[in-house]
Amino acid sequence: MTNSNRTWIMAKVPTGALEEDCFELIEQDIPKPKEGEVLLRNLYFSCDPTQLGWMNGSADYMEPVKIGQAMKASAVAQVVESNNPQYKNGDIVSGLLGWSEYWLSDGRDLMGGPLSHVGGQVPIPVSMGLLHITGFSAYFGLLDLGKPLPGDTVFVSGAAGAVGSVAGQIAKIAGCKVIGTAGTDEKCTWVKDELGFDDCINYKTENIPQRLKAFAPTGIDIYFDNVGGQILDDALAQLANGARVVLCGGISGYEKPQPGPSNMMMLALRRATISGFIVIDYMSQFATAGARMGEWYASGKLKSKEDIVEGFENAPAALKGLFTGDNMGKRLIHIADPQ
Amino acid sequence: MTNSNRTWIMAKVPTGALEEDCFELIEQDIPKPKEGEVLLRNLYFSCDPTQLGWMNGSADYMEPVKIGQAMKASAVAQVVESNNPQYKNGDIVSGLLGWSEYWLSDGRDLMGGPLSHVGGQVPIPVSMGLLHITGFSAYFGLLDLGKPLPGDTVFVSGAAGAVGSVAGQIAKIAGCKVIGTAGTDEKCTWVKDELGFDDCINYKTENIPQRLKAFAPTGIDIYFDNVGGQILDDALAQLANGARVVLCGGISGYEKPQPGPSNMMMLALRRATISGFIVIDYMSQFATAGARMGEWYASGKLKSKEDIVEGFENAPAALKGLFTGDNMGKRLIHIADPQ
Repeated sequence: MTNSNRTWIMAKVPTGALEEDCFELIEQDIPKPKEGEVLLRNLYFSCDPTQLGWMNGSADYMEPVKIGQAMKASAVAQVVESNNPQYKNGDIVSGLLGWSEYWLSDGRDLMGGPLSHVGGQVPIPVSMGLLHITGFSAYFGLLDLGKPLPGDTVFVSGAAGAVGSVAGQIAKIAGCKVIGTAGTDEKCTWVKDELGFDDCINYKTENIPQRLKAFAPTGIDIYFDNVGGQILDDALAQLANGARVVLCGGISGYEKPQPGPSNMMMLALRRATISGFIVIDYMSQFATAGARMGEWYASGKLKSKEDIVEGFENAPAALKGLFTGDNMGKRLIHIADPQ
Repeated sequence: MTNSNRTWIMAKVPTGALEEDCFELIEQDIPKPKEGEVLLRNLYFSCDPTQLGWMNGSADYMEPVKIGQAMKASAVAQVVESNNPQYKNGDIVSGLLGWSEYWLSDGRDLMGGPLSHVGGQVPIPVSMGLLHITGFSAYFGLLDLGKPLPGDTVFVSGAAGAVGSVAGQIAKIAGCKVIGTAGTDEKCTWVKDELGFDDCINYKTENIPQRLKAFAPTGIDIYFDNVGGQILDDALAQLANGARVVLCGGISGYEKPQPGPSNMMMLALRRATISGFIVIDYMSQFATAGARMGEWYASGKLKSKEDIVEGFENAPAALKGLFTGDNMGKRLIHIADPQ
């Protein structure tokens, strides 16, 4: 084991689009764990649009990353050296860690105990997307705020994305009719043929209002929004009475502000609701959600797709690609394999 | 009794601002009630922003008024001649009637039975604002969607308007801290001194974001929105965690579309909800609401202010004035007194 530890620090705060020069690679010695601490080797980093908000401070549900600090990410890591009785060497853990090859943790940035129970049942990448924050965002957003009923018509934007792909599949499990949007024909085909959505609109080449009207002539009961902007406005125009709009994300506006939706009064006319949420509020129910989704995954009802970028050095490019729609499914950065 | 009956018909569909030439005055004979019908004399018409939507078709919860038809209005009338066993001559009734001096009804456009029980307890104008659709919009919007708790901070736009003035007073009854917006200093003074709001912002001369931040440093728990547009956007920026935005109206955008709110992602960051409603959905609970609000009115906890325009011939100007902020409190058109 070399003594070198590389870290991507935040070099500047992104003001518009995320650029790779917002990060800088530094090299230091691998730290030594003190009493109560564990030294981790990062295996995978999760790529999430909300990370841009951690950098520019717009996601104020947590402390922003500061210039010179390691970029934060949801990660899975392996315990290399433990001075904390809760963890033993070799444990696979997950938490909100830093973009380093090796990371020193006092346990507070780890989510509960070792992840070995999940890691043993499903591949680590599945445990990071479908059975983690990403999948839970789909699960709680759709079920707790969307309240799907069998027969409901559900519209999911970002359907080929990490959250949208899961939200639409859970809506199908709940007996709904589901249509999505995605940015390429290849993604649309995957969403329909592999994930089982009833239909998918290529938002770059097709007329969304016309396609929604044809698919949902009596209106959309649930709109699960990952993108905001014009697609949100189009969805509002086609709501059914009593519709629920779940505001999960607004990736179209993260890099550059988008005009707000002009169809707000449709909420009154349709007795509809838009609700936002932050998935960490559901932490006490993560175990239940993980168990249910794990069963659906095991039985083949719920499919997981990961989009894995190889190599610690490619972390900035991998994150940037989320905003240009590079990914299909859950984007992860693979750093190392467990030993 | 003369045999002449004047009617304001809709002469053209308003495309932007409501102009008086959208209406035309015609004169006909007073109709004769057939079996099951009642001839009514209109006493008061209610002026409501939503009437513009009945004209241009944007309020699609009901059939739009057609060119050549009498303009519709919520109204209180007196039965002049009844051929319907449910009504007797002299009864005071309310319903969705036409802008005529005399109106023929088959009973289906009347709200339940005679209004004499309310008319006897409170003046007719109070029964048309505070204790009718207007007041009920404030009551159900605030209580059912806003769910106020004692200590909540409530922000009400259009605070000197018919609905806002009631919503803010009910929030005070519920133990909340209440701030409003209005368009003149005179209105703001009335909102504070007469209605008991804790504060009121003149949105034409004051900085709303600064004033909201100072009044609600930890955020607004409920925003009761009557206006939409920029004030909605300002409110979203200052929401508390778990905030409820009640979308009751959006008068700023009825005549000319307004840019949508740019702060939609605040709904996620604040785990907040925007809900719209149409008050007629609560019809089965109108009696309960009327009884409670009637008690608050009788005990002086809830004040009613009517802004009465005299004369049938002034109906178009009175309605138009709603959109220029002419009114303070509930605008009514007075046509005749009960006999």
